[in-house]
Amino acid sequence: MKRSIKSEATRQHILDTSFELVLRKGFVGVGLQEILKACDVPKGSFYHYFASKEAFGCALLEQYMADYKVRVEQLWQHTEQSVYARLMALWQAWIDDPIYGSWAENCLIVKLAAEVSDLSEDMRQILNLGVHRLTQRVALLLQEGQQQGSIPTHLDPFKTAQVMYQLWLGAALMTKLAQDKAPLHLALETTKQLLQPIQE
Amino acid sequence: MKRSIKSEATRQHILDTSFELVLRKGFVGVGLQEILKACDVPKGSFYHYFASKEAFGCALLEQYMADYKVRVEQLWQHTEQSVYARLMALWQAWIDDPIYGSWAENCLIVKLAAEVSDLSEDMRQILNLGVHRLTQRVALLLQEGQQQGSIPTHLDPFKTAQVMYQLWLGAALMTKLAQDKAPLHLALETTKQLLQPIQE
Repeated sequence: MKRSIKSEATRQHILDTSFELVLRKGFVGVGLQEILKACDVPKGSFYHYFASKEAFGCALLEQYMADYKVRVEQLWQHTEQSVYARLMALWQAWIDDPIYGSWAENCLIVKLAAEVSDLSEDMRQILNLGVHRLTQRVALLLQEGQQQGSIPTHLDPFKTAQVMYQLWLGAALMTKLAQDKAPLHLALETTKQLLQPIQE
Repeated sequence: MKRSIKSEATRQHILDTSFELVLRKGFVGVGLQEILKACDVPKGSFYHYFASKEAFGCALLEQYMADYKVRVEQLWQHTEQSVYARLMALWQAWIDDPIYGSWAENCLIVKLAAEVSDLSEDMRQILNLGVHRLTQRVALLLQEGQQQGSIPTHLDPFKTAQVMYQLWLGAALMTKLAQDKAPLHLALETTKQLLQPIQE
């Protein structure tokens, strides 16, 4: 039992330590040797936990998506706030977050989506499912907001969630490219306009 | 003189042949050996034209952005059409184009932005400048449309161009990830809404 806890800790240590490497250098850009060195584990130990580099990549993405879900729910736990305010807290976190920094700038989806889409069918599916679940969750929040009155009822919650995600994903990529947060601020401004009631 | 023409042809052959490789496998994901083999040129020849793999990457991106500019201007040459129609022709080409296929799916910006942003300052700047020029060009077209009457005057042309680009960039990335063009169609629908006149 103790061995199993230690074993789990080593696996977790490999995932945690290599996250930053992959975030900065991409998946193909980080060699196995570099991971082993950063994590201070021997090659045999790595292959004990992960059958291949791709299996490691899958585990890294699965953990990222699971952590992301927890972060979003933590952010949205203040149910005394309006849905509008809770939704805006998410986009504000994409720009800057006191705990995790800018979610957009530290996002494995932004960094890896284009790269893994043509590289690994398993990794692509994990990211795609993760994004699908996230936009579905945003849509459910929008529905809640429509019942509560803080989100306009003329909007299709599922389409609106998808549009917002696409807008923010593009903004995050532009922020990486321009090394400037202006695209994220513009996405925030546009999101506020999207969520405005129809002018009667 | 003849040598110089032949020399230019070889350089062009390397750039043309490797485009598809880089588009599918990314920049780091394509090794020099693979490029040499695909282009059927010796290593010395490659280094005659490009000082380094990074210099080759810069040349590839510069050529891509220059070609992109030509393609956009060709698409917009039908000045008898409304600006709205010409703008929509661009987004329609992102979804599907009879000559180049889907611009979104065959886009080096979509494929490489996240990867090169942390990898090569020179490559990042080429892509960033290219995108900046493209959105400025879209903004000028929007201004023309405002004078002509097919684009609503309440829109800020520069912000609107930027917002559209972010939305479409995100949609293109989602299309890669989902292997489904639905995000592009949703971007088209959203673009049409963005360009609607204010309901009085």
